[in-house]
Amino acid sequence: MKIPVAILGPTSYTALHLIQLLRRHPAAELTYLASQRDELPNIAEEFPQLMGLCELQCQKIDPPAIADQAEVIFTCVPHLTAMEYVPRLLEAGLRVIDLSADYRLADPALYEKVYQHPHTDTENLADAVYGLPELFGDEIPEADLVANPGCYATAAALAIAPLLARNLVKPTGIIVNAASGITGAGRRPAPHLHFPEMNEAFTAYNVGTHRHQPEIEQTLAAATGQEAQILFVPHLLPLNQGILESIYLDPASEAISEEDLFDAFEDAYADEPFIRIRNDLPNLKHVRDSNFCDLSVRLVKGKAVVFAALDNMIKGASGQALQNMNLMFKQEATLGLL
Amino acid sequence: MKIPVAILGPTSYTALHLIQLLRRHPAAELTYLASQRDELPNIAEEFPQLMGLCELQCQKIDPPAIADQAEVIFTCVPHLTAMEYVPRLLEAGLRVIDLSADYRLADPALYEKVYQHPHTDTENLADAVYGLPELFGDEIPEADLVANPGCYATAAALAIAPLLARNLVKPTGIIVNAASGITGAGRRPAPHLHFPEMNEAFTAYNVGTHRHQPEIEQTLAAATGQEAQILFVPHLLPLNQGILESIYLDPASEAISEEDLFDAFEDAYADEPFIRIRNDLPNLKHVRDSNFCDLSVRLVKGKAVVFAALDNMIKGASGQALQNMNLMFKQEATLGLL
Amino acid sequence: MKIPVAILGPTSYTALHLIQLLRRHPAAELTYLASQRDELPNIAEEFPQLMGLCELQCQKIDPPAIADQAEVIFTCVPHLTAMEYVPRLLEAGLRVIDLSADYRLADPALYEKVYQHPHTDTENLADAVYGLPELFGDEIPEADLVANPGCYATAAALAIAPLLARNLVKPTGIIVNAASGITGAGRRPAPHLHFPEMNEAFTAYNVGTHRHQPEIEQTLAAATGQEAQILFVPHLLPLNQGILESIYLDPASEAISEEDLFDAFEDAYADEPFIRIRNDLPNLKHVRDSNFCDLSVRLVKGKAVVFAALDNMIKGASGQALQNMNLMFKQEATLGLL
Amino acid sequence: MKIPVAILGPTSYTALHLIQLLRRHPAAELTYLASQRDELPNIAEEFPQLMGLCELQCQKIDPPAIADQAEVIFTCVPHLTAMEYVPRLLEAGLRVIDLSADYRLADPALYEKVYQHPHTDTENLADAVYGLPELFGDEIPEADLVANPGCYATAAALAIAPLLARNLVKPTGIIVNAASGITGAGRRPAPHLHFPEMNEAFTAYNVGTHRHQPEIEQTLAAATGQEAQILFVPHLLPLNQGILESIYLDPASEAISEEDLFDAFEDAYADEPFIRIRNDLPNLKHVRDSNFCDLSVRLVKGKAVVFAALDNMIKGASGQALQNMNLMFKQEATLGLL
Repeated sequence: MKIPVAILGPTSYTALHLIQLLRRHPAAELTYLASQRDELPNIAEEFPQLMGLCELQCQKIDPPAIADQAEVIFTCVPHLTAMEYVPRLLEAGLRVIDLSADYRLADPALYEKVYQHPHTDTENLADAVYGLPELFGDEIPEADLVANPGCYATAAALAIAPLLARNLVKPTGIIVNAASGITGAGRRPAPHLHFPEMNEAFTAYNVGTHRHQPEIEQTLAAATGQEAQILFVPHLLPLNQGILESIYLDPASEAISEEDLFDAFEDAYADEPFIRIRNDLPNLKHVRDSNFCDLSVRLVKGKAVVFAALDNMIKGASGQALQNMNLMFKQEATLGLL
Repeated sequence: MKIPVAILGPTSYTALHLIQLLRRHPAAELTYLASQRDELPNIAEEFPQLMGLCELQCQKIDPPAIADQAEVIFTCVPHLTAMEYVPRLLEAGLRVIDLSADYRLADPALYEKVYQHPHTDTENLADAVYGLPELFGDEIPEADLVANPGCYATAAALAIAPLLARNLVKPTGIIVNAASGITGAGRRPAPHLHFPEMNEAFTAYNVGTHRHQPEIEQTLAAATGQEAQILFVPHLLPLNQGILESIYLDPASEAISEEDLFDAFEDAYADEPFIRIRNDLPNLKHVRDSNFCDLSVRLVKGKAVVFAALDNMIKGASGQALQNMNLMFKQEATLGLL
Repeated sequence: MKIPVAILGPTSYTALHLIQLLRRHPAAELTYLASQRDELPNIAEEFPQLMGLCELQCQKIDPPAIADQAEVIFTCVPHLTAMEYVPRLLEAGLRVIDLSADYRLADPALYEKVYQHPHTDTENLADAVYGLPELFGDEIPEADLVANPGCYATAAALAIAPLLARNLVKPTGIIVNAASGITGAGRRPAPHLHFPEMNEAFTAYNVGTHRHQPEIEQTLAAATGQEAQILFVPHLLPLNQGILESIYLDPASEAISEEDLFDAFEDAYADEPFIRIRNDLPNLKHVRDSNFCDLSVRLVKGKAVVFAALDNMIKGASGQALQNMNLMFKQEATLGLL
Repeated sequence: MKIPVAILGPTSYTALHLIQLLRRHPAAELTYLASQRDELPNIAEEFPQLMGLCELQCQKIDPPAIADQAEVIFTCVPHLTAMEYVPRLLEAGLRVIDLSADYRLADPALYEKVYQHPHTDTENLADAVYGLPELFGDEIPEADLVANPGCYATAAALAIAPLLARNLVKPTGIIVNAASGITGAGRRPAPHLHFPEMNEAFTAYNVGTHRHQPEIEQTLAAATGQEAQILFVPHLLPLNQGILESIYLDPASEAISEEDLFDAFEDAYADEPFIRIRNDLPNLKHVRDSNFCDLSVRLVKGKAVVFAALDNMIKGASGQALQNMNLMFKQEATLGLL
């Protein structure tokens, strides 16, 4: 029998990608689309590309009814909204993979500082598992609540953790210069995301204040035991999907070679099907629509420069969520994702 | 002394282009930016590219105060809003170049049908001059109220009128297949204009129902005396500025040659500085940021196919408005525009 | 056992898409990449996105060796080159699906006129089947040589044939206004395809002289028995993949309604899994990366306007080729394609 | 009398921008286009946008003939080619503004190392002035040979020099993370610049090995007396024009505030018409088609992060060249450039 799957917030970009990935998944079946809207659309009206592929009618958010039809639910609603629903979804017996930010930061005080709002579900927060399989794969299979990582945070943590864990780079002065396609900002129109404003444009935003910055630091501390200091500087790219991070680190000593850095990646990710260690420079085009995170590194002018590329909608969101689902249901991690 | 100029609705894309064009105009000076906003911005805060170039403070819409500082005003507000203000602006003694649609259709009944709202200023409508200089240049110098033509309508009228006037094509069955950059839809964000929706996309809209369709028919009737039947099919292009129209017409007889069609254009526009008759195929890239309308024609498989390209923000809006201002103030048409 | 599959010309865009589609195909396996190059690359070096997905080494073009490892070969080389190799591939016992133009036009004289070169394999040309499954599906299963249709021609034929076959539109005066993404022009760099030349650009080309024009006419004659006259006007869009055609036809009589036109499509394509009849207007974005052809129609101002959208790389090339392979090997048409 | 001006290499993108800027320049006149081509085009055939604006015929490269008609020549040919012609142009009596890299690096040994070719005109190299007016404005008026700076190097030097000169940042460990539009790679088609390869793509290139890296270091040494160590990491953006550099520096001490950094810029550039110190974050869109370099700075997590934006074709090439011409001919620096 296939794993019956629900989605909360089906009219978001991450939900669209989940629906498309689930269609090709041999062991899962989408059964329930739970929407906050007053007028509940057929999902193929909302996303015309789904005509003939997925024509489910959206339904009300009724946790027991959802639990009747699904074992797991992907919550694709904004932060604050997610933690309104998650307790009831868990209570109804569903396992939850939350694509919002609400269960990513383990410390409620940090959450409140970063998201400017008290955490209202600290009970479940305490049990949430951070769903970055390459670093915390052991914890995911038994989890009932998985916090799906941020897109930027996924790339940065995967790029930095192996080097930090092996003491090849210093934990201080790390710079993550990141650039993302516009789907990362969601589906809601806004003046700065209006086509003519973004097209032929490029700028930084939230310099050193982006919410993924503490998330990266938390992940690196958990994965490596080191308190890394990250300066995270995101930029918006005039394209749809993809993140490229150019990460600058200080080698721990002059004895460290570029080969040592590559070896660390090869060692850390030898068994990881979604990490590709490349000799050439990662390009976000080459991970488009895939669950890969491509990594490469250069040692030049005294700096280690790591390049990490992923698709913010796939490995940065919906693909990784499905990878987590695979692990939670004791499937191959790659099922439906290669 | 320079012509003192005001703009109503200074935070629109058309206003931005007017401001940029006026900076280079040797005989005009921008003196007043009249805004409907509650909080009146400095225009360089609204449009960061204007820093150091134009840092005027927006002011309230006070017609007498505007008339103290300006002789002419460009109204860059949406239709319906324009005709709220235009009577008072005229009354205050200002000459008005209206970039909205409110004074383009001479017949109030047609206006009501097309814009789904009764015309509320039929008195001034009766005196308004349609500001397409290449076709109605004689009427513009004395006008106090000029209706600046629609972007699509400008290209279509310039492309069709010479052929129709010389009876080289039939007035029936004319197809205008048009494609426009996204600035043509204005600056207000909307779901379908959100960057990820428009990027890598192309579709038609308002097939045979676009409001410029009757405007084109009216213009051709006024310019040629013939009742042309236009099927107008616009598309949205994933780029910022520019319109290309591919126009299909039936030659009036089999005796007509491609050379006859070129001759008609050369004849009609011999003295027009902003019309370029090309042998190669017009590309909207080649008219970008210019006040040109590029035209070419092919006679193939029994059809005359005219291609017209212009920049929807310049010849399709702000450049043409300035061309009209030049004529109204007895300046060279090209002043500040080449 | 899976169908063993070879590709000739593996470094083209159509080959890349074939490789990606074949990876997901449950009943086919890629075994041989035959390349003309002197230095034979690993395909994952040529296309970095294939790392970890398909790392086949390209090999020499040796028809018997290919036939040892494959039953069918997709030829992804340019016209003229294709007909150099096809005879030997057939002779070696391979079935051939040719993505070039060499076997599309049944009449060698027409081929010579259109492609400015005599046809050098008229023997096999006589046996070639035109691989448009929705119109000629019966002939494909037994074919040894399938001519995969042109991208533009696929959309136009699918859009026009049902209306023409039912005498709902006149065969004369048909206008196909088409726009394609740049992958349609192939992978070889050229001045007019250089990024800065195409970006923020839009223009027509080959007006009434494009090679797909006679192909469309041939297809319509074969499918409907009528000699349709097509004026085909292609444009290049600043995006990667996708074709939208806006097709103008004269209804056969005034009695014909828009509903009649929709009914014709529903009737013609009721059992066709890759044709979607839409009420909303097709957008090439909504068929991206799919094998669908989306169709809709409007009856307005006396014209029937059909809109057809497909992905030029999938339904316009590699997806359709795979659909043909499915039919040739008695598989479900949709296998690996939904 | 206007300054008579020639261009060598008129079919390049930088020449196109020079021609367009010169058209609006009140004190200069383009008289001679010297081309290496065998078939000498009319420049309006080469660049269709110039029709009706500049229709000069290209001519042979004949230094004495050029000197008869011009006082100054802009050399818009690639490096290596430039130093073939410059000696003869100078000898003929022309003043030269070279947009290639040939006269930028003062040390011939460094040139040979960076450009992999011995310098063949060391005599004139010794007299060349580096044409970055904001840093070396005093030397330009009397120069006969001005080396117009590299686009990336202009932004980096303008961003770093004021802070380094005032000892607000350390000269070590400086990271310049840069991103440029595709025109920066020139007009010659190449596989990686083919539209479908660059569109929806983003990647780094020449990490720590780009030729502008030593140029930046040379400029900073000359302007500040300090040996700065620069790690320069360029990326290619899917857009036409514009550079954004995100520059990471270590403050010289903990006492330094963000205000100190802004003060340094205000102090350095108080009288510079083309430098805009912004509070908001520079966006390459906001300097498009202008000769501005926009600067801003953030002090965050212990790093000074400077953002510099300019148009690689204007302040990064042709606009700066014209600014240099203005200074060489004792004109206002801003003439024709605002």
